[in-house]
Amino acid sequence: MSSFETNGRSYALPANPIAVICLDGCADEYLSVAIARGKMPRLAAMARDGWRGMVRGALPSFTNVNNTSIVTGVSPRVHGICGNFFLNPDTGEEVMMNGPEFRRCGTILTAAADAGRKVAFITAKEKLRTVLGDGVVERGGIVFSSEKVDEAKLATHGIDDATAIIGKPRPEIYSGDASIYVLEAGAALAEQGKADFLYLSTTDFMQHKFAPEAPEILDFHARIDGAIGRLLDAGCTVALTADHGMNAKNDLAGNPKVIFVESLLHGKFGKALRVICPITDPYVVHHGALGSLVMVHLEDPSTRAGVADFLFSQPGITEVLTREQAVEKLELAPDRIGDLVVLSGRDVVVGKSPEHHDLSVLKGGLRSHGGRYEEMVPLVISKPLTPELQRIAEGDPRNFDVFHFACHV
Amino acid sequence: MSSFETNGRSYALPANPIAVICLDGCADEYLSVAIARGKMPRLAAMARDGWRGMVRGALPSFTNVNNTSIVTGVSPRVHGICGNFFLNPDTGEEVMMNGPEFRRCGTILTAAADAGRKVAFITAKEKLRTVLGDGVVERGGIVFSSEKVDEAKLATHGIDDATAIIGKPRPEIYSGDASIYVLEAGAALAEQGKADFLYLSTTDFMQHKFAPEAPEILDFHARIDGAIGRLLDAGCTVALTADHGMNAKNDLAGNPKVIFVESLLHGKFGKALRVICPITDPYVVHHGALGSLVMVHLEDPSTRAGVADFLFSQPGITEVLTREQAVEKLELAPDRIGDLVVLSGRDVVVGKSPEHHDLSVLKGGLRSHGGRYEEMVPLVISKPLTPELQRIAEGDPRNFDVFHFACHV
Repeated sequence: MSSFETNGRSYALPANPIAVICLDGCADEYLSVAIARGKMPRLAAMARDGWRGMVRGALPSFTNVNNTSIVTGVSPRVHGICGNFFLNPDTGEEVMMNGPEFRRCGTILTAAADAGRKVAFITAKEKLRTVLGDGVVERGGIVFSSEKVDEAKLATHGIDDATAIIGKPRPEIYSGDASIYVLEAGAALAEQGKADFLYLSTTDFMQHKFAPEAPEILDFHARIDGAIGRLLDAGCTVALTADHGMNAKNDLAGNPKVIFVESLLHGKFGKALRVICPITDPYVVHHGALGSLVMVHLEDPSTRAGVADFLFSQPGITEVLTREQAVEKLELAPDRIGDLVVLSGRDVVVGKSPEHHDLSVLKGGLRSHGGRYEEMVPLVISKPLTPELQRIAEGDPRNFDVFHFACHV
Repeated sequence: MSSFETNGRSYALPANPIAVICLDGCADEYLSVAIARGKMPRLAAMARDGWRGMVRGALPSFTNVNNTSIVTGVSPRVHGICGNFFLNPDTGEEVMMNGPEFRRCGTILTAAADAGRKVAFITAKEKLRTVLGDGVVERGGIVFSSEKVDEAKLATHGIDDATAIIGKPRPEIYSGDASIYVLEAGAALAEQGKADFLYLSTTDFMQHKFAPEAPEILDFHARIDGAIGRLLDAGCTVALTADHGMNAKNDLAGNPKVIFVESLLHGKFGKALRVICPITDPYVVHHGALGSLVMVHLEDPSTRAGVADFLFSQPGITEVLTREQAVEKLELAPDRIGDLVVLSGRDVVVGKSPEHHDLSVLKGGLRSHGGRYEEMVPLVISKPLTPELQRIAEGDPRNFDVFHFACHV
């Protein structure tokens, strides 16, 4: 077999191992600044000898949405993961999509394993392991998170004694180490010949906390670069992209610029509507559940145009789409989104109500994502593009084309 | 005097000369790739020792709109230049805004000259000289274009024998040389002490023609870097930004992806409406008057909601705003735009009708701009930011803050 298919796309089986890296929250500026300061010599060499460009992510520009797109190769309209949370239209309950049963198609990972590849999927956050790792271990692959690496077992994770193989103990999840660990674990597996088709997905704790120039994140990127070097030295084709960018969301005094959409709408239109913040996840320290996209669910559909016009007239709100428009324009699944989808500007977040968000967890201001200004992300590949890939790159390449790029360079 | 004011903003008079560069059409990828290939060592050193980040331009992401914002420090809503062309609501005529009388406020250039600075404004395109250079020569400054450098006279341009001072003959406008010349001319004036407050604005002929990896544009950027080095060596604080980005607008076969908006609307709603392509200018070889934003003018205002809905339902159209919404959301002047403002996607342009655009001038596919995906541009400064500038940088900094950055680092 020289290629495999999944979700209507065909992937070549490359001669050498591939390592696809999703650097969570890696706005392109992080790479530019780290390279400028000499902190990422291996990545700089990849950009020199291979290819570096910008690719468009999926909206909402959230972690689960884009990681799911990356491992399936398709848009949220197809795979159905349009946020971390959604309002179940049948039950009226807010549901956290923390299991694979919410995903509506298979993954490139299981397809590659079926095609004989030694697949390894390593994440920082345990939630991503459970949402996207299904079926890999059953096919002989390895799946674990750095958050719970010490719980990895052969039967459930495809690997015993993972910390011994990696040579380091479990890192703290709220740390840069949690992400470094993911890449170092991937490098260890590649070096030891235990995997040749790797998906390595980090966490954006550092990016939520630090602007590109901060010494802490420059050190972080230097260590990321060291691990990338190990992957390259182990013979991997490395393709690095991001799930979403990251922007500061504060006024000049350093206070978060928040529009509490549910409070605003309850005051104007009454309580027959709900706002869902689909960025919400258990890792609240990152962003206080504040991002640049929310869903509005209306009990009375006839109020929709009025609510939409009112919302769009608010300073800081940049786009308001109906459910039908969001399906077409944002490639979302109609039953996983609101009657209205609301996006905010580069420096603005949207939330539910003041009571719903604990801003005290945000030390040093808010950096977040979710909207249009975190849609464009970098793609860096260790090999030059073929003419066919160059044609894709000169159209509207997506971050969820990254496996296609990695398999075909 | 230690500072001067214009258009409600205050600018310090810096101790050393400043050179603000607007690199026309310089999407951030051009800099990343050129730096990665070792073609821009001086700019790389600026990013290392100073600051590099992303700033938001004005929409429409066109040349005149953004150059006007940069030299005035304010949005198009204030200065009134919302495109190269507009439909005069009083006469019903399409008017090219090729003179300063269309601008509604003064410039930083004349204010700096009034404050005693030796101002030089050098452009590639003659049109920009006439639109933005008014009042500078009268105040002892220098203003000329590389396109017509051989016509420069002391009385009208503030300089005689410009080609002798620069040491090179007039370049061809459809060339990279036209832009290199601008920066070399600025460097010559700075080296000779003839100017200490420079605005240098290039043309995007090369960016319309070449993707970031093309050898031709890598050579171009190497020469740009050489001229930047001369400005730095002459003691200038250098601040480089762009008026807009640049994206390929073709399908996989290499044909331009165009939506002819007037034809489409005439077919559906009849002929009582007109589409204006505000990117249109005399330099058609660049883009065939095809960009990612057009204006729709309706004879019957009651048709507006229907036309807007129909347009927004077209694949490739990403935003449709009413005049009032565009004033608020895009910061445009209400009497210089259409009843509707229409934006298209990263790889899509909007035009008037097939007859109106000569696609045969587009050799090697279309690269263009005008929309949301060309809104974000780089800013690179040769000195580190002060804490106050850092706070601005961590909000929503604009490309038309570039003089503020240059004057306050």
